[in-house]
Amino acid sequence: MSNPSRLFTFTGRDAGQWEIIRTVTVIGEDWPHAARLSVTPEPDAPPPDARWTLRGITSNARYTNRDEKNRLTERQEDLGRPAATLAALIPIRKTAAWWALTQDERRAVFEEQSRHIGIGLNYLPAVARKLHHCRDLSEQEPFDFLTWFEFAPEHEAVFDRMLDELRRSPEWAYVDWEIDIRLRRA
Amino acid sequence: MSNPSRLFTFTGRDAGQWEIIRTVTVIGEDWPHAARLSVTPEPDAPPPDARWTLRGITSNARYTNRDEKNRLTERQEDLGRPAATLAALIPIRKTAAWWALTQDERRAVFEEQSRHIGIGLNYLPAVARKLHHCRDLSEQEPFDFLTWFEFAPEHEAVFDRMLDELRRSPEWAYVDWEIDIRLRRA
Repeated sequence: MSNPSRLFTFTGRDAGQWEIIRTVTVIGEDWPHAARLSVTPEPDAPPPDARWTLRGITSNARYTNRDEKNRLTERQEDLGRPAATLAALIPIRKTAAWWALTQDERRAVFEEQSRHIGIGLNYLPAVARKLHHCRDLSEQEPFDFLTWFEFAPEHEAVFDRMLDELRRSPEWAYVDWEIDIRLRRA
Repeated sequence: MSNPSRLFTFTGRDAGQWEIIRTVTVIGEDWPHAARLSVTPEPDAPPPDARWTLRGITSNARYTNRDEKNRLTERQEDLGRPAATLAALIPIRKTAAWWALTQDERRAVFEEQSRHIGIGLNYLPAVARKLHHCRDLSEQEPFDFLTWFEFAPEHEAVFDRMLDELRRSPEWAYVDWEIDIRLRRA
């Protein structure tokens, strides 16, 4: 197929392109630490050294309007920049209360109350980002979203500030499991 | 798990709870006809008599606002009514142009221009309906959505009128594959 891959497997294991610096539990149960992470297009059998695997699929944006999309497109940079040697994989699960909200209610919490897109825009182009959805892959996915971020070491403090802003927003009252996995290109 | 199943497999085969009356191509490639259909919670290996299988997962509504949701909830009835001996399974694929729209643009086509929710409301409670998403299950799903409808034989003409209204709406310019599979409880 000529379309770009949408489905990715993130595998915590002994070998891989990314060294896992630390695995921090922000809220909810702990997640097992591994030495390395590999990111591969779906699907393969888990390698023998796999400690854990997570799957996610890129999809259409669910909240962004045209004006916001244009501003994001103008400012954002792609993954894989040579200077962006640090990364974060942040798996998140949202509560049943979140998923019971209607589209207008979710949008209001997401942007009008929490400025999720607005906050993210302030950190472009320093932080590159890709969102993977898990919730509709199967009934067995532990998380709802896997967000992948890449940035240069001089922007690590800036990245941490962005996460701090988001985590203090009303949207995060609907997050009941969040793991913050920090990585360095190996 | 106590949660209701979200992931379902629809199997066209020689045996099953539903007799397939006809398989009509509305737009796009033909889909193979089968004698019967079975609907089962995921996952199982396809039965030996399977002609085709389609999978879909129920999920949060992507466009409905609170007011619309309340009106739907007030009027809609559940699947499985004894009098509703007819059913339709309608697999749909939308174009790349649809998926490239932003949320506000998709909503405008879906409801403000096409009255998708408004049209559906007019046919409640005669028609019961369940939407299954396929697009984010994998990269290999042939369709984006599988909608399942149930109704009594005396409402078949009404159901056909609803489909006709929807198919003449601007939203349907973004549909490039649609199969209309009609069924009778066996």
